Amino acid sequence: QLCQHCLDYFLSDGDSDYLAGQTWVITAGPTREPMDPVRFISNHSSGKMGFAIARAAQQAGAKVYLICGPVQLATPAGVERIDVETAIDMQTQALQLALKTDVFVACAAVADYRVAQVAEQKIKKSSQQLQLLLEKNPDIVASVAALDNAPFTVGFAAETENVETYAQQKLQRKNLQMICANNVSTPGHGFNSDTNALSLYWRGGNLKLPLTSKQELARQLVQHIASVLKECPQPASK
Amino acid sequence: QLCQHCLDYFLSDGDSDYLAGQTWVITAGPTREPMDPVRFISNHSSGKMGFAIARAAQQAGAKVYLICGPVQLATPAGVERIDVETAIDMQTQALQLALKTDVFVACAAVADYRVAQVAEQKIKKSSQQLQLLLEKNPDIVASVAALDNAPFTVGFAAETENVETYAQQKLQRKNLQMICANNVSTPGHGFNSDTNALSLYWRGGNLKLPLTSKQELARQLVQHIASVLKECPQPASK
Repeated sequence: QLCQHCLDYFLSDGDSDYLAGQTWVITAGPTREPMDPVRFISNHSSGKMGFAIARAAQQAGAKVYLICGPVQLATPAGVERIDVETAIDMQTQALQLALKTDVFVACAAVADYRVAQVAEQKIKKSSQQLQLLLEKNPDIVASVAALDNAPFTVGFAAETENVETYAQQKLQRKNLQMICANNVSTPGHGFNSDTNALSLYWRGGNLKLPLTSKQELARQLVQHIASVLKECPQPASK
Repeated sequence: QLCQHCLDYFLSDGDSDYLAGQTWVITAGPTREPMDPVRFISNHSSGKMGFAIARAAQQAGAKVYLICGPVQLATPAGVERIDVETAIDMQTQALQLALKTDVFVACAAVADYRVAQVAEQKIKKSSQQLQLLLEKNPDIVASVAALDNAPFTVGFAAETENVETYAQQKLQRKNLQMICANNVSTPGHGFNSDTNALSLYWRGGNLKLPLTSKQELARQLVQHIASVLKECPQPASK
């Protein structure tokens, strides 16, 4: 972790402070939705992409808050980390911080559903089958984008099919400023990988960022968000 | 990891080789049961207790196989590790290895249920509610104990209530030689903790191993299994 901090320090020397004065909030990792005191529903997100974006934004001079689910990663130097478990915890933190941020990047793989009735004691293995009723979780990025005086809001779409169509639909339906799509069924793209490729869509156009390390990809993404933000500024800074 | 190997080497000097010539199979960690390509059901097991038992048995001179679900732990020196994801994968490996082992310690927190119909593509977040049909997973430790010429089989019972009653029932019902019970709702006991306490039950008696580090607890447990095994030897070695 000390090595990482030193590395961050030297790497950051090369970047200009083009985000100085801006606040960024980034969500990362999975969420965990409990079934009972020992079991949960989750997903394969490692948090690496969100942590890389947090590091890149901090190195470009932004004040960065990183809201993250359970992950096994060191916090990037200079980044304020807020640990959460469930989608509802993550939304509470996101809505509080969204009021004072310029850019909100929703990179977390939020569990779409939570268990409707969480058992207080461990569920015994009795019946041959078990019906689990799941309830839809709040849509965190859409709730941030729907705020009065919302920040510049960037969503992610991790898909296994029809990537562009689903991404364009999400951009419109959730009223986002930008969406970053990736096909997680392609080897080396997304979950748990150290590399990724992204297709960015915004109202004014689109851009493909080809396969590279998540850290390099994060640097390119942060630069691109900054340039689109410059062209279409959001309501006055908070 | 190198440090850990050196540490293992020096620690092992102190132990006699009282398990020389024996083979032990240990399962550890959670299993993950997929819902679709990105989501899964799992539990809070860190794998630490099972890894500690594998290390202790290896240091006492046994040939050790460690079958483990997804965990973030280094393999103890000299231990043969087999990585698996689901309960069915774990059972396949366990039944193969059980035929040539003297002792089988089922420390893994196997998911009791798997999703009946795993979706090939990511499930879209459409309906407000979702019914998930779960099917009971095979009972790995019971299937090992039910083998002709079964090894000395040790189960674990992680409970949040009625710990002793549930443990005694499991010992009988699954036809085990020993069961190690702990109350995972007590702070410092079990899941993700570095310490644990265990209550051991076997046909001839019971023993409480009080709260200590998982590594020390594992050493005591391995010694105790060895002494009970000596009193009540299993069918001829495989």
